[in-house]
Amino acid sequence: MPLIRIDVIEGRTEEELKLLADAVHDAVVESFEVPARDRYQTITQHKPYEMYIEDTGLGFERTNNVVVIQVISKTRTAEQKKQLYQKIAGHLQSRCYIDPADVMVSITENTEADWSFGLGEAQFLNGKL
Amino acid sequence: MPLIRIDVIEGRTEEELKLLADAVHDAVVESFEVPARDRYQTITQHKPYEMYIEDTGLGFERTNNVVVIQVISKTRTAEQKKQLYQKIAGHLQSRCYIDPADVMVSITENTEADWSFGLGEAQFLNGKL
Amino acid sequence: MPLIRIDVIEGRTEEELKLLADAVHDAVVESFEVPARDRYQTITQHKPYEMYIEDTGLGFERTNNVVVIQVISKTRTAEQKKQLYQKIAGHLQSRCYIDPADVMVSITENTEADWSFGLGEAQFLNGKL
Repeated sequence: MPLIRIDVIEGRTEEELKLLADAVHDAVVESFEVPARDRYQTITQHKPYEMYIEDTGLGFERTNNVVVIQVISKTRTAEQKKQLYQKIAGHLQSRCYIDPADVMVSITENTEADWSFGLGEAQFLNGKL
Repeated sequence: MPLIRIDVIEGRTEEELKLLADAVHDAVVESFEVPARDRYQTITQHKPYEMYIEDTGLGFERTNNVVVIQVISKTRTAEQKKQLYQKIAGHLQSRCYIDPADVMVSITENTEADWSFGLGEAQFLNGKL
Repeated sequence: MPLIRIDVIEGRTEEELKLLADAVHDAVVESFEVPARDRYQTITQHKPYEMYIEDTGLGFERTNNVVVIQVISKTRTAEQKKQLYQKIAGHLQSRCYIDPADVMVSITENTEADWSFGLGEAQFLNGKL
């Protein structure tokens, strides 16, 4: 159920984007313990001058590999969120060679009434999920 | 007031996109009972490999017509949300020939202080709305 | 820390987009009192028919200069938000010649657990921020 927005700078191949999206999705499945087909991702590719991602003074060196991931999800525990951050950074590093310093994640929570996955139904409310 | 993000796969004409946006807007007006000019929509068109929209095992067959609609709104009742899902799917089907199985909606709520519609003012706080 | 989504209609030069993003960022720093490098912005440029920004009957005349700014932030006071709206509109007017009637802002709040700025860490939880 999380809806995931992935923002990157253009330059990756279609295959590389798929690998990146797969890596993020696997991290979501592992951390939030959702079904494998609980996958809702959009990717937006930007020109370098359309993304300004700095570091709040933390000392990260961002590159053109930078990935910004926005997660819209039902309520999750802090433990699940910390797991998510680790898994995303880990998978993107091992599978896409993206430096963990280039990975930013922001989560926004909503509730069960806030989702319709299709057919005009609220599946968390009508018992289908 | 809802801010609506519409994500689709490219391929529609300008006129088809307008019909789609109109259909979504009418559903918002009818379900949330907002004024006709309470319309704030952005559309982002994607390559097919920039959207991964599956089904959480619900059995939907998604096509390249898939539409993801993110709604950012002040608090609404579950009843209003269920109405919104039905109306969006209904209007997109009857007016744009989009299968209801291709329509996903996600809502995020905020408060009256969270909106400025122009002039640097918070119109829900200063009595103009 | 706020993650800022800026949606505009295409037509600005790279330099004009940078000035716009700088103006928004300075308004965030001044209103939310965050560090100068607390900057996380994405810009999405749209065709005119990909943005429908009306006025809820407030009487604004929107032009192709219209800017929609979505702010995702930890909790802020109403006073901080009102300051933000004023500062954004003011800076965009004085530095980018954008009419305040063309500036819309929407805020969504989250919590300290909802941010990872890099390295797979939750920096608001582990004491680094």
